[in-house]
Amino acid sequence: MDRILWISAHPDPKSLTASLRSAALEHLRGRGHRVVESDLYAMGWNPVLSDADFEQPDTAVPLVSRQKAATLEGTLSEDIRREQAKVRETDTVVLQFPLWWYGAPAILKGWFDRVLTSGFAFWLRDPATGRVRKYGDGGLVGRRVLTVVAAGDRSTSLGPRGISGPLEDVLWPLLHGTVHYTGMQPLRPHLIARSDRLDGSAFEAEKRCLLDRLDGLDTEEPIPYRTMHDGEYDRESRLIDHLAPGESGLAIHRRAAG
Amino acid sequence: MDRILWISAHPDPKSLTASLRSAALEHLRGRGHRVVESDLYAMGWNPVLSDADFEQPDTAVPLVSRQKAATLEGTLSEDIRREQAKVRETDTVVLQFPLWWYGAPAILKGWFDRVLTSGFAFWLRDPATGRVRKYGDGGLVGRRVLTVVAAGDRSTSLGPRGISGPLEDVLWPLLHGTVHYTGMQPLRPHLIARSDRLDGSAFEAEKRCLLDRLDGLDTEEPIPYRTMHDGEYDRESRLIDHLAPGESGLAIHRRAAG
Repeated sequence: MDRILWISAHPDPKSLTASLRSAALEHLRGRGHRVVESDLYAMGWNPVLSDADFEQPDTAVPLVSRQKAATLEGTLSEDIRREQAKVRETDTVVLQFPLWWYGAPAILKGWFDRVLTSGFAFWLRDPATGRVRKYGDGGLVGRRVLTVVAAGDRSTSLGPRGISGPLEDVLWPLLHGTVHYTGMQPLRPHLIARSDRLDGSAFEAEKRCLLDRLDGLDTEEPIPYRTMHDGEYDRESRLIDHLAPGESGLAIHRRAAG
Repeated sequence: MDRILWISAHPDPKSLTASLRSAALEHLRGRGHRVVESDLYAMGWNPVLSDADFEQPDTAVPLVSRQKAATLEGTLSEDIRREQAKVRETDTVVLQFPLWWYGAPAILKGWFDRVLTSGFAFWLRDPATGRVRKYGDGGLVGRRVLTVVAAGDRSTSLGPRGISGPLEDVLWPLLHGTVHYTGMQPLRPHLIARSDRLDGSAFEAEKRCLLDRLDGLDTEEPIPYRTMHDGEYDRESRLIDHLAPGESGLAIHRRAAG
């Protein structure tokens, strides 16, 4: 029995996102999982990080430092603390959203901006080494993350040679720069392609596919991104020369399979 | 004399972003350019796309279709129309923001979500061929875009083999999926690294560097992304076999230099 936090971001209660969410939540609860929801539009979530988030009047120190101080003092605004508690008490996070401009809708991006604060999700130090814990380590270690993404594009457009870029590369800032950065384990994203053209039977097929995926989550291997402190990066945060020698780009930061 | 739209997204009037913006605007105006500003935090910009954006009560049609109808009928909300007019009347757009979770702050992401509507920036058809104009063509053709990004990371971390990924790849959803998608020309992003540690002389050096960059914008070559309708992609939106044969990833979508 897992604890699951299901975060979704779509304004339409009649959308594909909403329909798949209902089916998935019912299915997961039927299997005995404890599911908590953050339906960001329904909550009227405020995505704009600002000084209203924390009682730190000294604007002479950088924003991120004020954010950290408020996190450690427990003075973050109530809506942020509520979301942090949900994250703290979960094993799996599902992020479900329509792909808008090849990323998360602003309301979800602002959930990361405001909830994953310094001192909670990052800027923590390893007491033994003094090193900053990030990329494979961090405040949210021990959790896995599944992204469920609906896109108008056909799947080939988001495939290996597709014009939109491979979905894992498109979502790099989220999968690697956010999930992996904070110590969580990103799973391969779950794509629902041509989402604006699904008729009844195509919807049923996508629903089946998603529920099957959810049933197998426990045994899935996360994306094998390299971690910061296993000797694979130099002091300037570059991949060391003898790994993927001469290559660059995003793929070099994944360990080879097997 | 260029018309420049300078869009920025930082909550702190004392931030590095704000200081560099002031210096840049003064410099550009001193050179005779016409500069219009969208300081999103100062404007209290609403980044959450919703039905409040358009008077289209029929939620049985998809959101993007309601958005398009409102765009063509001129019934988009006033704040969106004002921003669209700014975009229409500019030659160059500057997007200045701190890198939060390896992307734009939510307030800026929501500017794309709400302002770059269907029928304005995309989902337009070429009257001659009937094809959808995107990736190198679209509603915003004829404009160039400079991104000015402040990051806490050191520059090597965002370099070719850096753990955070090369900055151009990190910003792929913006540079390629948004700017190039709508027909605008993305310039190489301008990075201000270790932005939380700049002392007085380092700030002066960064300022000088930015002003020099701005002075040379007119003669800069944009990032040479391939366009959709030049015969380089097949009907499934994949790069044709004999270009970068056997390769995948983001780099194959740039034309070789020279």
